[in-house]
Amino acid sequence: MTPSSEPDLRSAVAEAVRRARAETPFAPSITNTVTIDFVANAQLAVGGSAAMVYLPDEGEAMAEAAKSMYLNAGTLFPFYAETLPRTLRRLAALRRPWVLDPVAAGIGALRTELLRAMKDSAPGIIRGNASEILALASLWGVAAGGKGSDRGVDATDPVEAAEGAAKALALHTGGAVAVSGEVDFVTDGRIAARSRGGSRYMPQVTGCGCSLGGVMAVYAVVAEPFAAAVAATAVYNLAGARAEKLCRGPGSFKQAFLDELYLATPEDVAANPLETEEA
Amino acid sequence: MTPSSEPDLRSAVAEAVRRARAETPFAPSITNTVTIDFVANAQLAVGGSAAMVYLPDEGEAMAEAAKSMYLNAGTLFPFYAETLPRTLRRLAALRRPWVLDPVAAGIGALRTELLRAMKDSAPGIIRGNASEILALASLWGVAAGGKGSDRGVDATDPVEAAEGAAKALALHTGGAVAVSGEVDFVTDGRIAARSRGGSRYMPQVTGCGCSLGGVMAVYAVVAEPFAAAVAATAVYNLAGARAEKLCRGPGSFKQAFLDELYLATPEDVAANPLETEEA
Amino acid sequence: MTPSSEPDLRSAVAEAVRRARAETPFAPSITNTVTIDFVANAQLAVGGSAAMVYLPDEGEAMAEAAKSMYLNAGTLFPFYAETLPRTLRRLAALRRPWVLDPVAAGIGALRTELLRAMKDSAPGIIRGNASEILALASLWGVAAGGKGSDRGVDATDPVEAAEGAAKALALHTGGAVAVSGEVDFVTDGRIAARSRGGSRYMPQVTGCGCSLGGVMAVYAVVAEPFAAAVAATAVYNLAGARAEKLCRGPGSFKQAFLDELYLATPEDVAANPLETEEA
Repeated sequence: MTPSSEPDLRSAVAEAVRRARAETPFAPSITNTVTIDFVANAQLAVGGSAAMVYLPDEGEAMAEAAKSMYLNAGTLFPFYAETLPRTLRRLAALRRPWVLDPVAAGIGALRTELLRAMKDSAPGIIRGNASEILALASLWGVAAGGKGSDRGVDATDPVEAAEGAAKALALHTGGAVAVSGEVDFVTDGRIAARSRGGSRYMPQVTGCGCSLGGVMAVYAVVAEPFAAAVAATAVYNLAGARAEKLCRGPGSFKQAFLDELYLATPEDVAANPLETEEA
Repeated sequence: MTPSSEPDLRSAVAEAVRRARAETPFAPSITNTVTIDFVANAQLAVGGSAAMVYLPDEGEAMAEAAKSMYLNAGTLFPFYAETLPRTLRRLAALRRPWVLDPVAAGIGALRTELLRAMKDSAPGIIRGNASEILALASLWGVAAGGKGSDRGVDATDPVEAAEGAAKALALHTGGAVAVSGEVDFVTDGRIAARSRGGSRYMPQVTGCGCSLGGVMAVYAVVAEPFAAAVAATAVYNLAGARAEKLCRGPGSFKQAFLDELYLATPEDVAANPLETEEA
Repeated sequence: MTPSSEPDLRSAVAEAVRRARAETPFAPSITNTVTIDFVANAQLAVGGSAAMVYLPDEGEAMAEAAKSMYLNAGTLFPFYAETLPRTLRRLAALRRPWVLDPVAAGIGALRTELLRAMKDSAPGIIRGNASEILALASLWGVAAGGKGSDRGVDATDPVEAAEGAAKALALHTGGAVAVSGEVDFVTDGRIAARSRGGSRYMPQVTGCGCSLGGVMAVYAVVAEPFAAAVAATAVYNLAGARAEKLCRGPGSFKQAFLDELYLATPEDVAANPLETEEA
């Protein structure tokens, strides 16, 4: 059951963080080569277990072996034309709450084709920056909103601009949608949470978004999608704010951030600034 | 206009560093998987914006969306036989000042074929170690010099040995050529700059060369090629020297180096030891 | 000659560490994209030189150029169906003491086919966690032991469970086999060494196993396989234990660990806790 009050949501967040540390949830990925080790290290830091694959039958094997998966659309390889559809069919058949990260949505024929085909694959969580969420909603035709920037992987739209698209996507999938930005927005289409914190260094370190998606997949093994997305967003905002106080720049920030992901307690994550509202 | 006096060059360097921080220049890459996140993080640290792609139509889309690109010949994939030529044709048509990093020039049939075909693609900047610059000049038949080592990615020739090849390459392309080494050498074929600094840890950290090329592509959006190449070389030498004082070994060096890239001011970079001479 | 007494082994370890720093042994890799930069940086930290390739003729060129290679079965690409067999034929023809890291052995048709075909390729060193060693021994039919977990890349079996498989593999290949775990076990089939140290953070940082394999390949250039495998295991245990004292979590651990790899002296590595016994 999706928590519907703020106290319930905070309890669910604490429980997700606690269970991830206790149960080593396995959340394999098909993800881009830029940030692939950051994804793995962030998943390990919150207590999860990681594996990254590229080949079609390995995607299927991971879909079967794991209760959740992280699929990221960055740095596509040609053979993903086979890997992603086959993996998605298996995920759908098994009703896994997998996480979709539509990196660079709007750029390239294969990405467009693959993302379009995911419309009925029911990701448990969709995570992106505002531009990517807008682009995906436009691609799926689920919202009247604007279209995403095609300027690569950095958001050029504010979070607020994507709230309608996020809600529409969530209502379409029946899962949760998280929009990363200055104040993060997470919704299941009925209620929404705003999570605060983080650091000005996070946009200066590649992979803060991708690794957040990977952590959502870890939590999605031990919590329902909305709580998992909020828990991951909250631990990122907490760890980011703490790491910023310990660092001199983006290089030292990244390692301090991984330390803080590892050190964050369930209680601290649950207490991170969070507001809920009807979506 | 290429700056032709040392004071003009220092002014152009300061201006490149300042504009990169102010304008977030977008400089996408097709680059190797070993150092891909270092390239992105270095580009972000100096104020740029990054995206990495592998597929042919994505290379073309990036060539159109960005004013500069970084192309690195390491860890080639088979489909680069299509990706690189198509991207290069678009870059040439649009007259983009793209950056070529001929990593491991001289090894492998595909790399040789692809690099040979780049002879008339007019890179705005070529950056490599001495062995790579020698190998490329030999491959293009533009200099009588020696040939590069085929011992992988580490330079086995001194910078001085590649100065003639660098000048010949620059005169051929009409752009700039940077040879990385103990004292870095940058030339546009008419004048040359020697940049000093850096750290003994830089050869101990994989990707210091690749990420330097990525930063050159960022600066090439806001400065002409020779000034962009000198500015990137200077900020690397400055940040390397500063980082060495803060670290215990190559692990802590890398993160301190990224911090220092981020913290370097235009004035500090422009004041870094630099000598100019006729090429 | 394989050292057969503990004092001889400690001397051989010190000599391997010393020669690696003096001779910059070149040990190229075909390895996974998750931990590829960690492999390279660890190889550089102990004094080696690195290069990573993917294409068939580049694998062959590296087999010829280098006295050792590191082959890791993670994140396979489809074209490895050609790259790995061609590289292996060259390595076998040249009798190179290459290092096999059977990451995720047991998962996927291509990995199974490729690993099965390596049975007669005589790796000088096989390195894996207990689950991978068990899976490889089962695949090769060289031990009656259990089979490995198919839960991705983390060991779910204790080291002790894989000792018989390790011995059988070593007797089959005529080389060394290293099982990574709480207490590491290395054997050439006749004698065995147990190496102690390391850190609780090592399983929390992706690539501690892969990069260990890469370091073994560096040492295999300057030492016979058993001593090389023990030397690499010992420097990892030493550096891990030292780094743990300097860090707050897995992020700061990783960079401190690379520092300590770089700072470790031959004498310190040779003095790290080590026991030998008949296998």
